[in-house]
Amino acid sequence: MGLKFKPLADRVVVEPVEAETKTASGIYIPDSAKEKPQHGKVVAVGNGTKDYDMTVKEGDQVLYGKFSGTELKLEGKDYLIMKESEILGIL
Amino acid sequence: MGLKFKPLADRVVVEPVEAETKTASGIYIPDSAKEKPQHGKVVAVGNGTKDYDMTVKEGDQVLYGKFSGTELKLEGKDYLIMKESEILGIL
Amino acid sequence: MGLKFKPLADRVVVEPVEAETKTASGIYIPDSAKEKPQHGKVVAVGNGTKDYDMTVKEGDQVLYGKFSGTELKLEGKDYLIMKESEILGIL
Amino acid sequence: MGLKFKPLADRVVVEPVEAETKTASGIYIPDSAKEKPQHGKVVAVGNGTKDYDMTVKEGDQVLYGKFSGTELKLEGKDYLIMKESEILGIL
Amino acid sequence: MGLKFKPLADRVVVEPVEAETKTASGIYIPDSAKEKPQHGKVVAVGNGTKDYDMTVKEGDQVLYGKFSGTELKLEGKDYLIMKESEILGIL
Amino acid sequence: MGLKFKPLADRVVVEPVEAETKTASGIYIPDSAKEKPQHGKVVAVGNGTKDYDMTVKEGDQVLYGKFSGTELKLEGKDYLIMKESEILGIL
Amino acid sequence: MGLKFKPLADRVVVEPVEAETKTASGIYIPDSAKEKPQHGKVVAVGNGTKDYDMTVKEGDQVLYGKFSGTELKLEGKDYLIMKESEILGIL
Repeated sequence: MGLKFKPLADRVVVEPVEAETKTASGIYIPDSAKEKPQHGKVVAVGNGTKDYDMTVKEGDQVLYGKFSGTELKLEGKDYLIMKESEILGIL
Repeated sequence: MGLKFKPLADRVVVEPVEAETKTASGIYIPDSAKEKPQHGKVVAVGNGTKDYDMTVKEGDQVLYGKFSGTELKLEGKDYLIMKESEILGIL
Repeated sequence: MGLKFKPLADRVVVEPVEAETKTASGIYIPDSAKEKPQHGKVVAVGNGTKDYDMTVKEGDQVLYGKFSGTELKLEGKDYLIMKESEILGIL
Repeated sequence: MGLKFKPLADRVVVEPVEAETKTASGIYIPDSAKEKPQHGKVVAVGNGTKDYDMTVKEGDQVLYGKFSGTELKLEGKDYLIMKESEILGIL
Repeated sequence: MGLKFKPLADRVVVEPVEAETKTASGIYIPDSAKEKPQHGKVVAVGNGTKDYDMTVKEGDQVLYGKFSGTELKLEGKDYLIMKESEILGIL
Repeated sequence: MGLKFKPLADRVVVEPVEAETKTASGIYIPDSAKEKPQHGKVVAVGNGTKDYDMTVKEGDQVLYGKFSGTELKLEGKDYLIMKESEILGIL
Repeated sequence: MGLKFKPLADRVVVEPVEAETKTASGIYIPDSAKEKPQHGKVVAVGNGTKDYDMTVKEGDQVLYGKFSGTELKLEGKDYLIMKESEILGIL
């Protein structure tokens, strides 16, 4: 499968995971972030730039700031597109 | 065919696609963007700069932020001219 | 002929074309720009800088943003002087 | 043991130490910082960037500014994630 | 002759020409600049910096922005000292 | 002896000298700075960064701006931690 | 003789010359600067930085902007410490 969308430069597309989701390893996102998920799955990754090599890859579970990214509807689903530098880390 | 206009540096000219348009693969742009299209077709591409190589090419279907670019009328039609860095990705 | 003025660094001198002007290929500038031309002819070009090589040359028809450049009267005529990076592209 | 979270780029995850804590070497954090700890233990370290090599390592006791970092709940515990450049030094 | 003052780095000292002055080639400065000259003669030039090589030389007639430079009295006369990057071009 | 604290990157820890102090060579700090010392002794020095090599060393008597640095209590005493670039010079 | 103070990096220490002073070559500083001298003698020079080599040397008579530098009392006398880039030129 996979998305038919290629982010440009150092951008990634993230599929947000709902706040009530709890991973197998028992990870919760902070209470204060309930209304907007901060946990998501990377579904598309750009090629980076001259100055920036990409680290995350498709399928990575990532955490990102509450106000990161721009909303994007692709093939009927809601995603976020953001610069990789807005991703805090990989679960 | 093709536009008789060559964007300078890292700029591209984009022909906006109307919001009601729906591509074959079923892509919609977000509801909140109805009044201004965020989806367009690249019709002219600059040569890049010392620090920036261009990625998009003529004919690419691209997504871009709601407030990206400057309006431009060329040969009687409305276009947007923007830096390639304002393009989020290629459909 | 030519202007007896050499712009410094990455600057160009542009002779604005009146808004009512229409080129052979039928180019119009946007209605909202009526009071100030955005279309002009390059009449003098600087030598660039260590970081910037010039692209436009004398005689090029160019488009530029409505608020670009500084007004300049040379040999009795009105011109604009601007950085080449303010020029959107070549017609 | 160890956290199942890998900070991206030049970020580190710090486990804050309560203000009433006093290390064996008698270190206190300033009175004015009572309500928010400035002393913590590094529990995860990113790989750095092209321009920045990491200095701290897991287990380091560090001091950081009162407003440094973003709160993060991982596996049921509260942490801070911050850029290494926000860490003042190693105890 | 010459000034006994050596501008530092990428600075130049300019002797302003009064607004009513008209050069042999008929150059006028814009009406809106009457109260402050924008045309002057370069009387001293710095050695440039690591990142900037000087272009103008002593004796050059130059145009500069209305608010460019700092006033300076040297040997009883009024001058302006400015960065070369504030000079628009050479007449 | 020495502090059990290693400043990160281009930071130094300074032990402020009280305003009424007067060195052997008769140095006074300005009157307007009475309420906050601007003179101190370097007690710990970071390793610098890729772009910045450290100049001061432990034991140096330094002057620094009135608002430089962040207060820090280490082993029961008050210090300031600051970037070396905030240090004006060595006495 | 000389000052027992070594400015750090690209800083210089300047001994201001009173406004009523007039050098042998008849230099005056502008009237509007009467209340604060803009003319001084360099009494100590830093070693520069990786990106900046020093130009002025001890004993140079320099001009600097009215608001340049920070006041500093050393060995009972008033000085200014400033970055060399704030010095306009050498008399």
